[in-house]
Amino acid sequence: MEPARNSTGIAMVGFDADDTLWRSQDYFDAAQVQFERIVSAYVDLADVGKRLYEYESRNIAFFGYGVKGMALSMVEAAVDITGARISAADIHRIVVLAKELLRHPVDVLDGVREAVAAVAAEYPVVLITKGDLFHQEQKVRDSGLADLFRRIEVVSEKDPPTYARLLEEFGVPAGRFLMVGNSLRSDIAPVLELGGWGVHVPYHTTWMHEADAQLRRGGERMRTVAAIADLPQAVRELAALAA
Amino acid sequence: MEPARNSTGIAMVGFDADDTLWRSQDYFDAAQVQFERIVSAYVDLADVGKRLYEYESRNIAFFGYGVKGMALSMVEAAVDITGARISAADIHRIVVLAKELLRHPVDVLDGVREAVAAVAAEYPVVLITKGDLFHQEQKVRDSGLADLFRRIEVVSEKDPPTYARLLEEFGVPAGRFLMVGNSLRSDIAPVLELGGWGVHVPYHTTWMHEADAQLRRGGERMRTVAAIADLPQAVRELAALAA
Repeated sequence: MEPARNSTGIAMVGFDADDTLWRSQDYFDAAQVQFERIVSAYVDLADVGKRLYEYESRNIAFFGYGVKGMALSMVEAAVDITGARISAADIHRIVVLAKELLRHPVDVLDGVREAVAAVAAEYPVVLITKGDLFHQEQKVRDSGLADLFRRIEVVSEKDPPTYARLLEEFGVPAGRFLMVGNSLRSDIAPVLELGGWGVHVPYHTTWMHEADAQLRRGGERMRTVAAIADLPQAVRELAALAA
Repeated sequence: MEPARNSTGIAMVGFDADDTLWRSQDYFDAAQVQFERIVSAYVDLADVGKRLYEYESRNIAFFGYGVKGMALSMVEAAVDITGARISAADIHRIVVLAKELLRHPVDVLDGVREAVAAVAAEYPVVLITKGDLFHQEQKVRDSGLADLFRRIEVVSEKDPPTYARLLEEFGVPAGRFLMVGNSLRSDIAPVLELGGWGVHVPYHTTWMHEADAQLRRGGERMRTVAAIADLPQAVRELAALAA
């Protein structure tokens, strides 16, 4: 890679994938509705979603992120919530939910290809996504967007040490890196923390885990855009500040 | 990375992780024995292991490799094998098996640190492992071996295109790359196929899936060693041929 064309300014732009380039959380939300339907045949609880989230949060330490870990958490939660009364057939329906989620079509969001291509015409762009390696690679392939990116990096956590390691591999200083994504917690805050730049593109629904974010520093080095079509302009504005 | 010190000869050595650097298949085998015990309370079958493997093989297309996919396949297989009679509590035991497997201690195999360090003194070494990103990263950390490797690459499949992509990222031609591992199918055959070099270090037990290998070409560019202690000598011999 030859990331830096000049010695100042933005030298590389990173993109998140799920809910930035393509629809993802909607599928998880729909799976959760299905899960609640299965469990509600056994118990009448208002807080099934909250109890599932407790399992998911606790199990991240075992499973990491992604559909397979969610499915195993759903099985655990279903057994617990129903007092172990849930039938094997209903548990199998949960496994099938996961398999469907792993094979859903990849719906690239409106305007994404144009916006990424516009940024890619000016900067080397890379894709940095969190979660299950196998599933993420499959979605990148199915999206038809792979050709736009110099590198595809699937990471297990999007925290400052992970971004720092990637930037070292890319040979790009943090102050010359700009990240684009829908999650303040995973895409924006850690990059600002390192001294980088961010464009936040909110998605209409956010997993509870990602919603929990604090911007401790660097707020002046980010922009929020209402639509991905506004991304190239926001990148230009921040690049002017970085120059 | 500055991989090539000379313009000919071996420029980089890659290591597989599971069952090459540390014990892995033993834990999977033990989990399978537990699974058979759980299921045998419902049915009296001699071929439970074979039927589980059928589910695992079929589900690789959905789940990829790793413990979480195995656990979901176990749940599916258990429901099917027992005619959906298995209890929720017993299914929960299967999920717990997976969680234990994800948290087993990392037993570095005898002589590994010395052998890797000896090779690393002469060549840049990288770790290339297949499976679940989160679990593999955890094992690398727990092994205490991470400091020996220039790069840790977790990939979803170990086939010629994957090795070709990594070698391009590393800037090393296949003819100057040597891979060390216990699996002919995943570690040796694809690298020989690309024109590279291999040292096969067999492990005492092999997953059925990995045992299924054919060496179509390049047999003269590999060595098999009985113990990892013999690795540095085997690398030296092949390096002399590559020079």
